[in-house]
Amino acid sequence: PESKLPALGTTIFTQMSQLAQQHQAINLSQGFPDFDGPRYLQERLAFHVANGANQYAPMTGVQALREAIADKTAGLYGYKPDANTDITVTAGATEALYAAITALVRPGDEVICFDPSYDSYAPAVTLSGGVLKRIALQPPSFRVDWEEFAALLSPRTRLIILNTPHNPSATVWRKSDYAALWQAIEQHKVYVVSDEVYEHICFAEEGHASVLAHPQLRERAVAVSSFGKTFHMTGWKVGYCVAPAAISAELRKVHQYLTFAVNTPAQLALADMLRAQPEHYRELPAFYRARRDRFMQALADSRFEILPCEGTYFLLADYSAISDLDDVSFCQWLTKDVGVAAIPLSVFCADPFPHRLIRLCFAKQEATLDAAAELLCKV
Amino acid sequence: PESKLPALGTTIFTQMSQLAQQHQAINLSQGFPDFDGPRYLQERLAFHVANGANQYAPMTGVQALREAIADKTAGLYGYKPDANTDITVTAGATEALYAAITALVRPGDEVICFDPSYDSYAPAVTLSGGVLKRIALQPPSFRVDWEEFAALLSPRTRLIILNTPHNPSATVWRKSDYAALWQAIEQHKVYVVSDEVYEHICFAEEGHASVLAHPQLRERAVAVSSFGKTFHMTGWKVGYCVAPAAISAELRKVHQYLTFAVNTPAQLALADMLRAQPEHYRELPAFYRARRDRFMQALADSRFEILPCEGTYFLLADYSAISDLDDVSFCQWLTKDVGVAAIPLSVFCADPFPHRLIRLCFAKQEATLDAAAELLCKV
Ligand SMILES: CSCCC(=O)C(=O)O
Ligand SMILES: CSCCC(=O)C(=O)O
Repeated sequence: PESKLPALGTTIFTQMSQLAQQHQAINLSQGFPDFDGPRYLQERLAFHVANGANQYAPMTGVQALREAIADKTAGLYGYKPDANTDITVTAGATEALYAAITALVRPGDEVICFDPSYDSYAPAVTLSGGVLKRIALQPPSFRVDWEEFAALLSPRTRLIILNTPHNPSATVWRKSDYAALWQAIEQHKVYVVSDEVYEHICFAEEGHASVLAHPQLRERAVAVSSFGKTFHMTGWKVGYCVAPAAISAELRKVHQYLTFAVNTPAQLALADMLRAQPEHYRELPAFYRARRDRFMQALADSRFEILPCEGTYFLLADYSAISDLDDVSFCQWLTKDVGVAAIPLSVFCADPFPHRLIRLCFAKQEATLDAAAELLCKV
Repeated sequence: PESKLPALGTTIFTQMSQLAQQHQAINLSQGFPDFDGPRYLQERLAFHVANGANQYAPMTGVQALREAIADKTAGLYGYKPDANTDITVTAGATEALYAAITALVRPGDEVICFDPSYDSYAPAVTLSGGVLKRIALQPPSFRVDWEEFAALLSPRTRLIILNTPHNPSATVWRKSDYAALWQAIEQHKVYVVSDEVYEHICFAEEGHASVLAHPQLRERAVAVSSFGKTFHMTGWKVGYCVAPAAISAELRKVHQYLTFAVNTPAQLALADMLRAQPEHYRELPAFYRARRDRFMQALADSRFEILPCEGTYFLLADYSAISDLDDVSFCQWLTKDVGVAAIPLSVFCADPFPHRLIRLCFAKQEATLDAAAELLCKV
């Protein structure tokens, strides 16, 4: 069949993970930990499976999990969403993003996103017949120029997609960014999808700034999060989104026919985990900061220039001093000849990205990070 | 936001299950067993979770599971799909249906389905800008009139969606139906999505006729199946689809950005289960035939007329002798006043459905079926 997504190949994450495996390289490409999640969470899953919680969950998510999410949100962002009408559990954050975009974007609508941008936004917009308008952020700060943003707004603008902490740039939004966003869109009838899957992996002084903490913006926003990142279980595929009732009603219509419901015992186990060990996510910034600092330190003597990292479990490294190769070729070389797999930044951008930057995942054991750093220092 | 699916409310399955709970009725509405799946499958899940298989699965599904599916398919339908290129594991059959429809249907394309039809087909077609053409099948046989079908084909026809064993009518397609379908579409460039989630719950003498057993049709078809129905674990949400490489490539592009991947430990456990206990699905027809026969027997003295059931775990009951109520009102009354929840058939049809039929799920313990039958016999 002719393709509805002709430009798309296999995601870079799959490509690089496969190349890493082929060459037995240390895989710092696709974002996932090489250590396991909490034993308690695993035990709770086994418990619920053995106790017969194996049939369909409610379409919107298990009640106990939605309530735990509501309480967590209230504690973190001073705003308590309604567990019944505002929270929807999804098959990972990817499904939440797809459902939100599909519910909101109509053929011909314009959608603004910020490049580099996560690779699932564009196909979702395209499949809804929307037109993506991209603002190219510039390294090393990757900050939004709000005048450029205002100039891109049009009567056809329907949706803004933002992401903080930002994958792959590792920068975070400030409260002032939200203030600027609100000022720009207040008079327009536009919605916001805020991808906050790294909400608990934030090292910025003012902490993670969630769209849910902004009283006006949250009335138009879908905030998306992920348990895979927070609990080191990217393979469980449970995420969720928070949105006002009227928006949630629309995205639930899509979710209902996209996946209908999410793995029941995993939801129950996550509800138990959120209640029993909230310190897990409270301590996550310190947990990852230690890994980040160790890895940065180990790379200090390399010829890579490491950019600041305010959030996510990714680091950007500039290889200008090492090679003239474009970033895709450099990553292939690095995987094959050096033995470390990374992600080229240009794949997150629609326009040519004339920088020499690669993304390294530090959600790894210290031994893995040390071994990778040793190889990278030899380059 | 204005709705992209304005006609849609909450699915009837959720509605009726909630009403059943409210009135503490026996829930024979939403299709799920009230007994548990195989202990071995549960133990394998716990094993893989405890053994660290908790990170992203490959986008297309875990290799061991795709290979087990290829072998099962070869054994059952005399055709072995390529585990690498033809099989994709999805977040339940619902996601497989959504991904296949989204990959194949372009704005303005016509899609033919057979009413009564499962409620997820239409929204998926609508969200892709397709136009649904429905053929209304008539009880009690619900057979396709192939002249009517041929008359509906047009140069804009892009996709045929069929479902066998058929939910909710409990009828099954014969080889002759596929022959007629092939004859009708051979000269047209149309695709087929075959919803076969009840493939292992078939009581027909010639067994389940899969589209995969038809050498020409399978070259244009996506066959969709579900582990939830087969292993009594509807809450695990693992399904899959089989399609030729070129079609699979397109639906994988959608799957990749819809959910990316499916719960890893559940996939590994299902792979173990398929290998270790193939007798589970081989014996499933006998397992469910016994329940069907017991329930039918117990209803023989009631004033319901029970229609023949060739497949699925649903029975149709005609209540013409009991009430003049429309089927939705009758189901509400039955839930509230009699204490048995069922599904009205009209909700599966776009046109008025001037019959008095309800659907009863017999995927229940014998005690549940006996108790329900006792209540239904008093009506
Ligand atoms: C869904 S696989 C990609 C994981 C990820 O989010 C990343 O590596 O950026
Ligand atoms: C996805 S909930 C509905 C279950 C089902 O397939 C049915 O009851 O027909």
